[in-house]
Amino acid sequence: MRILLVNPNMTKAMTDRMAGIARAVLPEGMDLVPLTAERGFPYIASRAEAQVGGAVAYEMIAAHAETADAAILAAFGDPGLAGARELFDFPVVGMAEASLLTAAMLGERFSIVTFSPVMQRWYVDSVRDAGLTSRFTGVRTPAAHSADVGAVRETLRADLIELCNAAVQEDGADVVILGGAPLAGLAHEIEEDVAGVVVDPVSAAAAQAVALLTLTRPAAFARRHSKPIAKASKGLAPALSRSFARETAG
Amino acid sequence: MRILLVNPNMTKAMTDRMAGIARAVLPEGMDLVPLTAERGFPYIASRAEAQVGGAVAYEMIAAHAETADAAILAAFGDPGLAGARELFDFPVVGMAEASLLTAAMLGERFSIVTFSPVMQRWYVDSVRDAGLTSRFTGVRTPAAHSADVGAVRETLRADLIELCNAAVQEDGADVVILGGAPLAGLAHEIEEDVAGVVVDPVSAAAAQAVALLTLTRPAAFARRHSKPIAKASKGLAPALSRSFARETAG
Amino acid sequence: MRILLVNPNMTKAMTDRMAGIARAVLPEGMDLVPLTAERGFPYIASRAEAQVGGAVAYEMIAAHAETADAAILAAFGDPGLAGARELFDFPVVGMAEASLLTAAMLGERFSIVTFSPVMQRWYVDSVRDAGLTSRFTGVRTPAAHSADVGAVRETLRADLIELCNAAVQEDGADVVILGGAPLAGLAHEIEEDVAGVVVDPVSAAAAQAVALLTLTRPAAFARRHSKPIAKASKGLAPALSRSFARETAG
Amino acid sequence: MRILLVNPNMTKAMTDRMAGIARAVLPEGMDLVPLTAERGFPYIASRAEAQVGGAVAYEMIAAHAETADAAILAAFGDPGLAGARELFDFPVVGMAEASLLTAAMLGERFSIVTFSPVMQRWYVDSVRDAGLTSRFTGVRTPAAHSADVGAVRETLRADLIELCNAAVQEDGADVVILGGAPLAGLAHEIEEDVAGVVVDPVSAAAAQAVALLTLTRPAAFARRHSKPIAKASKGLAPALSRSFARETAG
Amino acid sequence: MRILLVNPNMTKAMTDRMAGIARAVLPEGMDLVPLTAERGFPYIASRAEAQVGGAVAYEMIAAHAETADAAILAAFGDPGLAGARELFDFPVVGMAEASLLTAAMLGERFSIVTFSPVMQRWYVDSVRDAGLTSRFTGVRTPAAHSADVGAVRETLRADLIELCNAAVQEDGADVVILGGAPLAGLAHEIEEDVAGVVVDPVSAAAAQAVALLTLTRPAAFARRHSKPIAKASKGLAPALSRSFARETAG
Amino acid sequence: MRILLVNPNMTKAMTDRMAGIARAVLPEGMDLVPLTAERGFPYIASRAEAQVGGAVAYEMIAAHAETADAAILAAFGDPGLAGARELFDFPVVGMAEASLLTAAMLGERFSIVTFSPVMQRWYVDSVRDAGLTSRFTGVRTPAAHSADVGAVRETLRADLIELCNAAVQEDGADVVILGGAPLAGLAHEIEEDVAGVVVDPVSAAAAQAVALLTLTRPAAFARRHSKPIAKASKGLAPALSRSFARETAG
Repeated sequence: MRILLVNPNMTKAMTDRMAGIARAVLPEGMDLVPLTAERGFPYIASRAEAQVGGAVAYEMIAAHAETADAAILAAFGDPGLAGARELFDFPVVGMAEASLLTAAMLGERFSIVTFSPVMQRWYVDSVRDAGLTSRFTGVRTPAAHSADVGAVRETLRADLIELCNAAVQEDGADVVILGGAPLAGLAHEIEEDVAGVVVDPVSAAAAQAVALLTLTRPAAFARRHSKPIAKASKGLAPALSRSFARETAG
Repeated sequence: MRILLVNPNMTKAMTDRMAGIARAVLPEGMDLVPLTAERGFPYIASRAEAQVGGAVAYEMIAAHAETADAAILAAFGDPGLAGARELFDFPVVGMAEASLLTAAMLGERFSIVTFSPVMQRWYVDSVRDAGLTSRFTGVRTPAAHSADVGAVRETLRADLIELCNAAVQEDGADVVILGGAPLAGLAHEIEEDVAGVVVDPVSAAAAQAVALLTLTRPAAFARRHSKPIAKASKGLAPALSRSFARETAG
Repeated sequence: MRILLVNPNMTKAMTDRMAGIARAVLPEGMDLVPLTAERGFPYIASRAEAQVGGAVAYEMIAAHAETADAAILAAFGDPGLAGARELFDFPVVGMAEASLLTAAMLGERFSIVTFSPVMQRWYVDSVRDAGLTSRFTGVRTPAAHSADVGAVRETLRADLIELCNAAVQEDGADVVILGGAPLAGLAHEIEEDVAGVVVDPVSAAAAQAVALLTLTRPAAFARRHSKPIAKASKGLAPALSRSFARETAG
Repeated sequence: MRILLVNPNMTKAMTDRMAGIARAVLPEGMDLVPLTAERGFPYIASRAEAQVGGAVAYEMIAAHAETADAAILAAFGDPGLAGARELFDFPVVGMAEASLLTAAMLGERFSIVTFSPVMQRWYVDSVRDAGLTSRFTGVRTPAAHSADVGAVRETLRADLIELCNAAVQEDGADVVILGGAPLAGLAHEIEEDVAGVVVDPVSAAAAQAVALLTLTRPAAFARRHSKPIAKASKGLAPALSRSFARETAG
Repeated sequence: MRILLVNPNMTKAMTDRMAGIARAVLPEGMDLVPLTAERGFPYIASRAEAQVGGAVAYEMIAAHAETADAAILAAFGDPGLAGARELFDFPVVGMAEASLLTAAMLGERFSIVTFSPVMQRWYVDSVRDAGLTSRFTGVRTPAAHSADVGAVRETLRADLIELCNAAVQEDGADVVILGGAPLAGLAHEIEEDVAGVVVDPVSAAAAQAVALLTLTRPAAFARRHSKPIAKASKGLAPALSRSFARETAG
Repeated sequence: MRILLVNPNMTKAMTDRMAGIARAVLPEGMDLVPLTAERGFPYIASRAEAQVGGAVAYEMIAAHAETADAAILAAFGDPGLAGARELFDFPVVGMAEASLLTAAMLGERFSIVTFSPVMQRWYVDSVRDAGLTSRFTGVRTPAAHSADVGAVRETLRADLIELCNAAVQEDGADVVILGGAPLAGLAHEIEEDVAGVVVDPVSAAAAQAVALLTLTRPAAFARRHSKPIAKASKGLAPALSRSFARETAG
């Protein structure tokens, strides 16, 4: 079975790191296919960028759809998630949604901690879109934005531990999600310093992809009454055009 | 002042009809610039298509951003609306949102009537995204989807009148929105047959664009604290790339 | 076309100021008829006062209903709005609701800034009644109530600018509404000092009245299935009694 | 102790019937003072009528405030309830709210059955205003409005029993409230025909007035931080003017 | 008439204190039967303890069901409330729910003040379960947990007064509930020091039990369509087993 | 690793069937320990029974807590779930919650289909407790309750398929959960007859237990700030008493 790890950001180092973390979760016989966006942005951080990044992600998935069994949208915020589920006949996992739903099984209330106040709005909206606002205790972030996003795992490590403990002690969270691709893997490193369960979104997304593959068969997706009607299109990447047309490649 | 009428669908006849309706609402001195998508879909009808269509709409707006004072997203469902507001430093009006907010000023409860059950989910989500679910009495549609979307204004006319009256009499709506670009202009034709106020989304969007232009100055948008950080990008249409980079054209 | 500007407060200087602001928004051919309450309170600031003030507003509207095309309830908090819409067969615009719905088209999240903590509860309820709580970031006010309400535009100017910027920077609002009739017009004066879009409620109400008049015809209101049944009454102002009886004046 | 039974409708027969029902619930030493509106409407059935009727109710309460210990707003829909609580320094009970809160203690889900579809909207709003929508299974009414409201207790008796049982069996209500002053007392007559607990709003309001008088002292109301500031007024009934001015009669 | 005061905690001194407070509210002819748990915990303070404590409460009620007319669950948080209402054919009053609903009739917004941050989550959930979140301004507690729960009425008295006034002045509460059995009776002692109405949960529960007994007859509960189907069981206390089997004792 | 499959019902045949289904999902190296309640009810179907059944489940888990790595509460409705998570220092999975959260990753809207109208209320509450009401399209059940619960998989098979398709086609569900232990395994048998994805709750719970074990370490649960304070108890099963006391067995 092949799971696509779709990074809609153009930063390959980020994809590589996430692929390593995801592979550590997969059982034998499940292969991960890491994909890095070739157009778009170095790092998506707004709704506008997510609109474009989501469409890019569809191109990436479509190009591998015929040989894939599932896809992970590997950007916290899940650009294009609802539409990807309509379009493709296999499970699509969003890194944010998978973390939120996992957190909801690990405790009654959960929080998100991330590296920049810039991400806050988008993450709050993710929780609303997932429908889990009633169990959410909020986002905690450092006060200022760090220019060097790639370095935050190191430079903000102590701050992030403190924010996690504030989420637990002041906001009443049972579980803390370390949101944002630049923090991938950090949960495993700092969990002993936090008085609660810490969730790594990449691991959570990979584990959920495994769960969904265990529970479903592709034919059920193909049979869906709620699948959109096949559509002609113009000017789209050829594979994506075929996905919208519900055609198999020839 | 120039208002872009951005049809993210590729059907020019639809753009022309909508432009006529919108112009009837504009005061002197406000010009409408109708734009039809050159890539994408004949008619957007799903979340997946809206993801792509919203990104196409950004390209269309960006190409005219330097000479525009406002933009109307002329597809009910408002593909890309939240991001467009982040990206551009002038008012962006969504046809669905403008209709919903207008309806909320014309009565306490409102309904949407549209031409196909296929559109129902997306429209319900528009109401949720606008935040107006508590004043919404639901979507009413014919039972079956009509293959010839371009003809529904004629073929379904009697059915739509009946659905409007059911919304008013059975669901308790004060106001009915005739949703979906193929129904543009129909509200004005059938309003005498309906026991309530009927809203035409194109007219509503145009009237709201005028209102917003009356009330704001571009400098306020440019000053916004909540505007995303300027971003480099790759592989995007050049004008859109400049918009994300916060550059003026050279 | 004639739009009533109904100030349910007895302070004529406030009506005059609001009339000037509203007229600046109206296109040619739309006349404003400013009305000041002759009974009731100098300035409505509670639910109890709004109950009485709303009934007074109905008397004022009813006295001019036969020659009016629309009415603006010119007190933030919109005393009697829902009932006024039932009673009269033309658009009735609430200053608070119009501001909130306008703000919702200018950004995703909005805040209210006002001049006194005393007004806070009523304004929060306005947002709930409008149905827009999910897009609201809260009310910000000075800590203490100023006795001289008429002077707050001058005395609190610097504080209000600071509160607007706190709403934008700390609460994440894209748009700030300067609520309360004593602040009418201030938005235009301070907007350059605020890092976001600032909405003036009087201007917003006037612009929305224009939009609604553009979009509707009186016959549609008269035809409403949801209009209350004609009612006899006793002891009411004669014009209001006729409005409840659905009679035209003789 | 004296409890005002404030009927904001002008129908004295209705007041008399309600007074009888309420007195049956009061313990010895609690007197009921029935009051019938002398201006307004025979029977309030819309938001617009409730705006006026609520202001009339304040006049009625104010005229007896110095000798009263509590007041019951004896119209289902509770015109003016929030403001009455601000204005008077003793418990004010709303017939709708008291029924809803009582029902919420008698079972997990409750329904309202009433005599006319015309009342439906207002009653639904009462549940929203009370904050209890999550435990509400809806309003059930006959399909058509009966012109002779005074006779519905007899003419609709069988229909109302059927509606109550539908609420219980089809909507899953544990408790049914028989809403609307014209149905006062009917709950006691038909409860053996209904497969659930039936609540009479007049009895519930009287029982709750007793409970609140048992639990509170007037001084606590007078001390409230949230009490509105004393207000001068003009043109109001003298007693009401004194209430707003926070004066005792001289 | 006999009302069971069911303390699912094992602390008899607490039962005695609560019985005294409740009896002060009961009219003549209503007897209180205080019951203290003989298994379980000294003081329930978590969801896990409430799961067990609720089942213990059922045993206690069942043992006296044949001679009881109503029951009060005398632990703030109301362990087992929803199920107790299904199981027994008479009114069951929860101390938290009764306080919340009473508070909602005494003002528009209410707060809970309690003695320990440990109780906060459970109390917030009580408000959600009651359905009253929209009128709730939050829980205020001291920063730290006091080991000697039995002494908090004395040791924390000044802190609790301060918290009540903060709830009123900063959070905008009209009414403050002093939650938690260890604070039973304190409301009456401190109310003069608080700028709002203070509710004692034991008194509120007793007053509501009286109200419900006034308003209902047992036969209505026995007739409920929504009563669970009779069930055989094994290993339960004999009286509880008979309650589930819908048997009368032999 | 050992996962407890805790059936709080006393029907061993049901446990055996569920154990078979769960084992089919577990990877090598994960053992399932099926447990059947020895006291309580044959089949839990109400809130009252769930209160007792949840406490019985705690006894069952506590008796095996020292050698267990996770527990599945194997009754749809998840009796005692929130408390079990407080009490035990490992993941506890609820069959209903796991199904709901899984369904939320397989599509945007989901429905529950079950075998009896009697279960409907409890299942609706499960969705509310999980926080996922905004993505839920409702419960569909046969009109009548079948006395022989053990046989419904066979006797109601055709009806259940029809209900699933109605959920998909009329309610707009993408995913259907076949709720209730008597239907365990049926999803796999009928999925080809349903135009959507069908979720089996036992399989979903097992797959989620695997995911949670993959993602967490027991030490994190032991470290939780939100863990209740250790409590003495009396009269509880010895192992459960030790769990509440936070003691390890001696």
